[in-house]
Amino acid sequence: MNFEVTILGSGSALPTLRRNPTAQYIACNDRHILIDCGEGTQNQLRKFGVKIQKINHILISHMHGDHFFGLVGLLSSMHLLGRDNGITIYGPKELEQIIRLQLEIGGAKMNFNMNFVVLDNSKPTVIFEDKMIEIHAFPMKHRIPVNGFRIQEKVKSFNIIGEVFKESGLSLMAIPFFKKGEDFVDEEGKIHFAEDFVMAKKPSKSYGYCSDTAYFEPLIDSIKGVDLLYHEATFVEKLADRAKATFHSTAKEAATIAQKANVKKLILGHLSARYDSGDDHLKEAQTIFENTVIVEDGMVFQV
Amino acid sequence: MNFEVTILGSGSALPTLRRNPTAQYIACNDRHILIDCGEGTQNQLRKFGVKIQKINHILISHMHGDHFFGLVGLLSSMHLLGRDNGITIYGPKELEQIIRLQLEIGGAKMNFNMNFVVLDNSKPTVIFEDKMIEIHAFPMKHRIPVNGFRIQEKVKSFNIIGEVFKESGLSLMAIPFFKKGEDFVDEEGKIHFAEDFVMAKKPSKSYGYCSDTAYFEPLIDSIKGVDLLYHEATFVEKLADRAKATFHSTAKEAATIAQKANVKKLILGHLSARYDSGDDHLKEAQTIFENTVIVEDGMVFQV
Repeated sequence: MNFEVTILGSGSALPTLRRNPTAQYIACNDRHILIDCGEGTQNQLRKFGVKIQKINHILISHMHGDHFFGLVGLLSSMHLLGRDNGITIYGPKELEQIIRLQLEIGGAKMNFNMNFVVLDNSKPTVIFEDKMIEIHAFPMKHRIPVNGFRIQEKVKSFNIIGEVFKESGLSLMAIPFFKKGEDFVDEEGKIHFAEDFVMAKKPSKSYGYCSDTAYFEPLIDSIKGVDLLYHEATFVEKLADRAKATFHSTAKEAATIAQKANVKKLILGHLSARYDSGDDHLKEAQTIFENTVIVEDGMVFQV
Repeated sequence: MNFEVTILGSGSALPTLRRNPTAQYIACNDRHILIDCGEGTQNQLRKFGVKIQKINHILISHMHGDHFFGLVGLLSSMHLLGRDNGITIYGPKELEQIIRLQLEIGGAKMNFNMNFVVLDNSKPTVIFEDKMIEIHAFPMKHRIPVNGFRIQEKVKSFNIIGEVFKESGLSLMAIPFFKKGEDFVDEEGKIHFAEDFVMAKKPSKSYGYCSDTAYFEPLIDSIKGVDLLYHEATFVEKLADRAKATFHSTAKEAATIAQKANVKKLILGHLSARYDSGDDHLKEAQTIFENTVIVEDGMVFQV
């Protein structure tokens, strides 16, 4: 079971040569997810060795250009490279029109199905679910409607310890009960405890993504206890006024959210182009939440 | 008088790590022009040290994404960097809607005026003219309407040789005549020949841009005798069928145009991503037109 996050762009609205605008690639149990898609994302995917045709879910948090200007180019390239597998794109309602209009004007007839799903943004929602993963969207607070995301491994069934089960001589009818972690009562009314027959289950991992947002405590419920949290930290406290005015967060605010949500590890990005380094962000965040890393383009994190 | 062309992107529809999609920056007598603006152009401008706020004319040849997907991001960045000088954007009629829609959805209120000029594409036209330069647009042949461009220094007035004029004792009334290269007849009916009073005029230089287009002889008139011609060469002759089907040119066809137009130098770009090098393009072109160069991102050419 792999679950990793590749940072494709760690910058904010104004890209720099060091920090591309926002995009992340998440591989989770053979599901391939792109979160946000700033200009140049397709090149970052190439640069960091991600196979772009593997991506089958694209999540767009909001309609600021540094989070979606690269989407139309990525979809064009998927088409030119011969894609025929459909793709699902989750985002604000305006996204579909913007993308289709640009492709139609150029006369492109896409060979694959683009399935746009509108995110409602009024409350936390499960937007995708299969037997391996769940994707949750939840509202945050910005100048325009914005969603955060949580990607979560599914709680998987218990593995039965073959030898123990064999020796017990129990009927095969017991297996579905044990797999669900339930005890089994045999025909004679005897209780067989699941915990005696199954291996310890690995805890399901989860990843939280919060960009862009002002300091916003209501989102804490949606990312409670995640193994890895990405939170925007456009500014440091010195520019707290600017953060407030633009509905962004400071590094300290991001760390406060991480602490209150009791996450295991915090990674910070979306740094304003005015900062040459993230040293001050890191210092500030670590006064509140020690296990913090400032991301750079190309970094890969295991969840 | 400077007149130079910086290649920002030399690739075709599918960008690669080596070749960005199409864009060129032209500096001509303190006019700063961007031709086409594929995804990532703003980063290429940064990489090659062009000051993006200097650009005051943007020419978009046609509505295929590899020629305009980077425009909205560039305009956003100009805004974020505090631009207040207006900019004129020349292109197909659909361009303005596409750009304004994306900026409006993100809630951007631009601090500078974006003046969109629709190119008519039915015949060669002068689309801009001031005392230093002219910009011409002319139709070419592609799957959708497309314009080529010629940027031309204005024929400037003659400089008078001060010493000679002083010694002649002629009236100041003669100056406007000489500046235009005309002879002057004094009150006594005596003819004073302009050529005796003025310095040799430097020939006005010109640059031609032809991308994307099939082999199309009618464009020759519009680029006749230019000092530098950029022509697309997506394919080599081996894929002439593919060139025909997609309304692109082979290197040989581009060289034939250069030869028939009697240009001084030919530069070839828009190479398909399938070619690792432009060696075959060069060999093929030089059988027809010797003074040819295959462009790479970042190359600068003096016109």
